[in-house]
Amino acid sequence: MSTPTNTVHNFNAGPSILPKSVFEQASAAVLNFNNSGLSILELGHRTAAFTAVMEEARALVKELMQLNNNYEVLFLHGGASTQFMQVPMNLLDSKERAAYTDTDIWGYKAIKEAKLFGGVDVVCSSRDKNYSFIPKDFAVPNDAKYLHITTNNTIYGTQWQQIPFCSNSLVADMSSDIFSRVLDFNRFDLIYAGAQKNMGPAGVNLVIVNKNILGKTKRIIPTMMDYRNHINEASMLNTPPVFAVYVCLLTLRWLKNIGGIAAVEKLNIEKANLLYNAIDESDLFVGTAVKEDRSKMNVCFVMNDNSREDDFLQFAKSKGIVGIKGHRTTGGFRASIYNAMPISSVQVLVDAIKAFK
Amino acid sequence: MSTPTNTVHNFNAGPSILPKSVFEQASAAVLNFNNSGLSILELGHRTAAFTAVMEEARALVKELMQLNNNYEVLFLHGGASTQFMQVPMNLLDSKERAAYTDTDIWGYKAIKEAKLFGGVDVVCSSRDKNYSFIPKDFAVPNDAKYLHITTNNTIYGTQWQQIPFCSNSLVADMSSDIFSRVLDFNRFDLIYAGAQKNMGPAGVNLVIVNKNILGKTKRIIPTMMDYRNHINEASMLNTPPVFAVYVCLLTLRWLKNIGGIAAVEKLNIEKANLLYNAIDESDLFVGTAVKEDRSKMNVCFVMNDNSREDDFLQFAKSKGIVGIKGHRTTGGFRASIYNAMPISSVQVLVDAIKAFK
Repeated sequence: MSTPTNTVHNFNAGPSILPKSVFEQASAAVLNFNNSGLSILELGHRTAAFTAVMEEARALVKELMQLNNNYEVLFLHGGASTQFMQVPMNLLDSKERAAYTDTDIWGYKAIKEAKLFGGVDVVCSSRDKNYSFIPKDFAVPNDAKYLHITTNNTIYGTQWQQIPFCSNSLVADMSSDIFSRVLDFNRFDLIYAGAQKNMGPAGVNLVIVNKNILGKTKRIIPTMMDYRNHINEASMLNTPPVFAVYVCLLTLRWLKNIGGIAAVEKLNIEKANLLYNAIDESDLFVGTAVKEDRSKMNVCFVMNDNSREDDFLQFAKSKGIVGIKGHRTTGGFRASIYNAMPISSVQVLVDAIKAFK
Repeated sequence: MSTPTNTVHNFNAGPSILPKSVFEQASAAVLNFNNSGLSILELGHRTAAFTAVMEEARALVKELMQLNNNYEVLFLHGGASTQFMQVPMNLLDSKERAAYTDTDIWGYKAIKEAKLFGGVDVVCSSRDKNYSFIPKDFAVPNDAKYLHITTNNTIYGTQWQQIPFCSNSLVADMSSDIFSRVLDFNRFDLIYAGAQKNMGPAGVNLVIVNKNILGKTKRIIPTMMDYRNHINEASMLNTPPVFAVYVCLLTLRWLKNIGGIAAVEKLNIEKANLLYNAIDESDLFVGTAVKEDRSKMNVCFVMNDNSREDDFLQFAKSKGIVGIKGHRTTGGFRASIYNAMPISSVQVLVDAIKAFK
């Protein structure tokens, strides 16, 4: 069997790096889960062994995020794109209105889906500035059923540094910065996140919901779309994505072991500062997001002379750096430095930025 | 790292056994995919490496099933339960009617969802006989938009031996017998299957659709629910369940290598005959499904003296047999003998049946 080399530094935006120990444990479980003689891939989801995995994962989310008992934790099929539809389907009646912030492609897509289910007020937008900043001055209508934000924007490298204060219900897509920084998560009524950044492999969706907000619409919701059905079945309404949930559990355990969200936030700040400083001090590279709104997860930058970007990609590749090509819609570079990214790998990129002539 | 023991015979109904070589390759790829130095779990889905996986998997499905060029192959998030909603959402207008067969719990659930989207005619049912047989005499209204069948019934151990002939569009849930027997798959307009029986791990859904039947409803379909959007993006509308798709590919390659569907069908018949004969020859055990409708995938049986069932479970366990407890709604026993189940494991169960006093 091949073993991982230490020479690859994976800055992919997602699916993305996870802790090496998680890969090792996951790999072993595909052969023999907990010494059962069975692969995790052939483990029945109703077995005691898997029920324990699901329950530990759900409990760890509550513990790490310090959620109160109003919250239910679900691991659902699909990605955040599924939630763009599922959130308004559960929360918004056709004659009601919801407030959405348009701060990146994902928020924009969420708006499009919400409009299929009710009225939408787009309360702010940075779309005409290529989503390079997070709008600060906006008002949320009192009658908005909820305010939807996308806390971190993978493509453009911005992040809400302050969670907006409003009296409305708060709904957040945290796909790309969940578990990366301390927030008062109890301020949100619904949080969702595709797993494939800070949590696990693609193919599972974390949904955290204040159960008190559910059951208030008149809409008839298909069985698989109704959060209440999943809550009633302890996140096992149908066969869950067993392996993906297990890898999430491994990552959550790792996070707890290194000290939880506060500890990883400290490391994330250190990594982001290291990389942004190198970009700011360089004559060749320039960051694309407004400084005060810069993401600590996705560092986006371009070259003053963009004809040299392919050269830098090649140079970086020669140092073992992969995944820094910017999103197909933006060009330039994007270095994703999620929780599992070691500072030593960030240093390799920083050295490359400094060494490139 | 632990290695799998050879002493466990896994008769779980799903998630269920996959070929041992698939587990080995999947385990290796979690550490180092194709010698890239990256885990398959951290591989970006837009990389050339993963696009190749997706395209090979889609092409192999078409090849193994000998599908003509009207068909599109999609690997979608979710399980068959998601398709219960997605099928009528795409195919059935609110004033149209569809025909459904009620031959097991899954068909029953599919009926419930379809009723949310249009009219449903239940054209046959074996519900009042505990789903122990497949109805033969029924008529499908000419105006039914489609006829829906569940080709194999995991819980009750029945299987459609003949695919009903009708002039309507044919839609089939093949979750538990896909790739297990030769059929004229081009007779179906839509086939769907949760992966976790004959194809891969839980967390991905195979949808095979005749593209000519799409786009005929007036309903506005949410982006993630519209098959056409997935077709247009080559099954990469959003981040797909990368690992689950990869394991499906490994299983499809394995199937092709052993000779394809015709070859595995021969083995499946041999395994089923071996086990059913042992049950029929026994004085203690009795099969629950009507003989002519018996499933070659899920063999359901009880004991004449049901007070002894726990003893048999213990006895079987001592032989390394796991997963034969019947579904929580039926009791008794269920031995699932999917494509990857070796005949040697079936023999161990047969020996246990013969040896038990």
